[in-house]
Amino acid sequence: MSTQRVETLRWREGALELIDQRLLPRRFEYVRCTSVVEVASAIATMVVRGAPAIGCAAAYGIALAAQEARSLGRDMPSSLEQAFELLILTRPTAVNLRWALERMRSRWQQSPMSAHDVAQRLLTEALAIHAEDIAANQAMGRLGAALLPDRCVVLTHCNAGALATAGHGTALGIVRSAIAAGKKVEVIADETRPFLQGARLTAWELQQEGIPVTLIADSAAGYLMSQGGIDAVIVGADRVAANGDVANKIGTYQVAVLAQRHGIPCYVACPVATIDSSLQTGKDIPIEERSADEVFGFGDRIWAPPGIRARNPAFDVTPAELVSALITERGIARGPYTTSITALLASTPNP
Amino acid sequence: MSTQRVETLRWREGALELIDQRLLPRRFEYVRCTSVVEVASAIATMVVRGAPAIGCAAAYGIALAAQEARSLGRDMPSSLEQAFELLILTRPTAVNLRWALERMRSRWQQSPMSAHDVAQRLLTEALAIHAEDIAANQAMGRLGAALLPDRCVVLTHCNAGALATAGHGTALGIVRSAIAAGKKVEVIADETRPFLQGARLTAWELQQEGIPVTLIADSAAGYLMSQGGIDAVIVGADRVAANGDVANKIGTYQVAVLAQRHGIPCYVACPVATIDSSLQTGKDIPIEERSADEVFGFGDRIWAPPGIRARNPAFDVTPAELVSALITERGIARGPYTTSITALLASTPNP
Repeated sequence: MSTQRVETLRWREGALELIDQRLLPRRFEYVRCTSVVEVASAIATMVVRGAPAIGCAAAYGIALAAQEARSLGRDMPSSLEQAFELLILTRPTAVNLRWALERMRSRWQQSPMSAHDVAQRLLTEALAIHAEDIAANQAMGRLGAALLPDRCVVLTHCNAGALATAGHGTALGIVRSAIAAGKKVEVIADETRPFLQGARLTAWELQQEGIPVTLIADSAAGYLMSQGGIDAVIVGADRVAANGDVANKIGTYQVAVLAQRHGIPCYVACPVATIDSSLQTGKDIPIEERSADEVFGFGDRIWAPPGIRARNPAFDVTPAELVSALITERGIARGPYTTSITALLASTPNP
Repeated sequence: MSTQRVETLRWREGALELIDQRLLPRRFEYVRCTSVVEVASAIATMVVRGAPAIGCAAAYGIALAAQEARSLGRDMPSSLEQAFELLILTRPTAVNLRWALERMRSRWQQSPMSAHDVAQRLLTEALAIHAEDIAANQAMGRLGAALLPDRCVVLTHCNAGALATAGHGTALGIVRSAIAAGKKVEVIADETRPFLQGARLTAWELQQEGIPVTLIADSAAGYLMSQGGIDAVIVGADRVAANGDVANKIGTYQVAVLAQRHGIPCYVACPVATIDSSLQTGKDIPIEERSADEVFGFGDRIWAPPGIRARNPAFDVTPAELVSALITERGIARGPYTTSITALLASTPNP
């Protein structure tokens, strides 16, 4: 269905290689992580970002920790627990991180094994998480594509594309699948201050494949909606509560409020791993507040006056009432979400 | 009431001097305009911006055109008409530009005069417009300040401060007057992409006077409202239609929608000169679309991939139903605005 042109993560010769997303679109470069510390640092500094991609990277981080423990003769269980604790602290909002780490832990806790076997098993598991994420994105793509009209303009916020996942993408995976199915889809990309994932990543990623994309300031979304210029909103998610509340990149809430006002469907594309059924509502989702520096400018270009204060919440929570549907690899859930999410989680994964 | 610390425009030795707002806060520098062409260029390139400041600058542009015509012995009426046409084309959305130009025209059309007398009279009129704008801002400040609680956090979008006017400011004039009246007011400033008036101008202007200000990405306003962190929204306006619809900086509409959702009052501060009673609704207000370049980055720092498309509407229209009150120098208007605006325009200006 989709050629995986953007390989966000790859396992090469015993190391995890990550596209350095801080440098895009100016430079396309891989960062090579040979230790769990390097992986944790790459997640914390947003070399890699996007909830599913963070989950995959963390799984490889555990695999690297096992390799290190084995080659240095360290105690395997305590080394892996330390790696778990290190990785879990890198980003608080995306639940895929915890999901992937707990899945890895369930493997190393399974039965007594030699250090060699543990390391081998954990690498196999990380590779499986990676492959399953691509498959999940393709399943979501097919399901979501069916919701779009034959010709449409889709607004997206942040980057929920191949760069945010192991490949294909969640929100942009739906766009890719719809285009592959013969639909005419254009994308409006919010630039997504302060890290500019829309301007740098979504614009670049879609441009690589010739998918029509138009960049706007985040403040222009409402105006375009008021002019009839948007047919659907599709975004990704960092964590979905049991009641369907969605934590996603700061600004998603505003887009969802505007979409509702203009009668535009607002779809959230997320793998089942993004659903945190332990949280009843979005109020319980921890919202990461990042350094104020990100708001003062971009990169080394600072435009705010020195000494000014800033707030930089990295995520917000969109209440379930504003979400038209959750698109997962196991099916599409609609409100009331408490029921539909429970049913989804109880269902068998699609082949 | 307020010391006019930021002198956005000043008439010095036969020329108009403007703070170059493109350079703030890095450099504080005046641009000296000695001809109407220089004034038109300064308005078009946003050396000076903000509807009231643009109106004042245009009035001085006419005064300069009269000086030029007189010293070069050109035909006065046709020179002034050309100057009018040149200036009116610089920015389409703010109506203060047309208002000031038509007021200047009514002076030069009044009665036959010598070239010397025309030039003198037009300079006097420009100085009057300048002084009246400051007085209007101070009147608005007093009226608006009474609407704010004794302790509050005010969200503002773009810069409707001293830098957008002849001094004191519209939205920020209210903040200044409230503080002068002993209220504790903190400001949250939307950074206001793409030109970053909030990050560069509002933050700088308030910092100069020690008024507490916190900068946020435009996308964070909804989140802060949802957390109970905003007590009032105050913005300026570029044009207000007869029914109370408000054209203002792109993103104002989104802020107003969010304020309504959270039960937060949304005030629009504008001098009567901003009201265009010739337009029944905001649908008729022309919305300037500026160069896509502004969205690709900021200044010489480009972060979007080369060859990408962008849309850059510079303004949007906030429907009257979202406006809690219009604060003018003649009084406060509330809905239904068709009635209250008519009454306001028929009233005598305050002394």
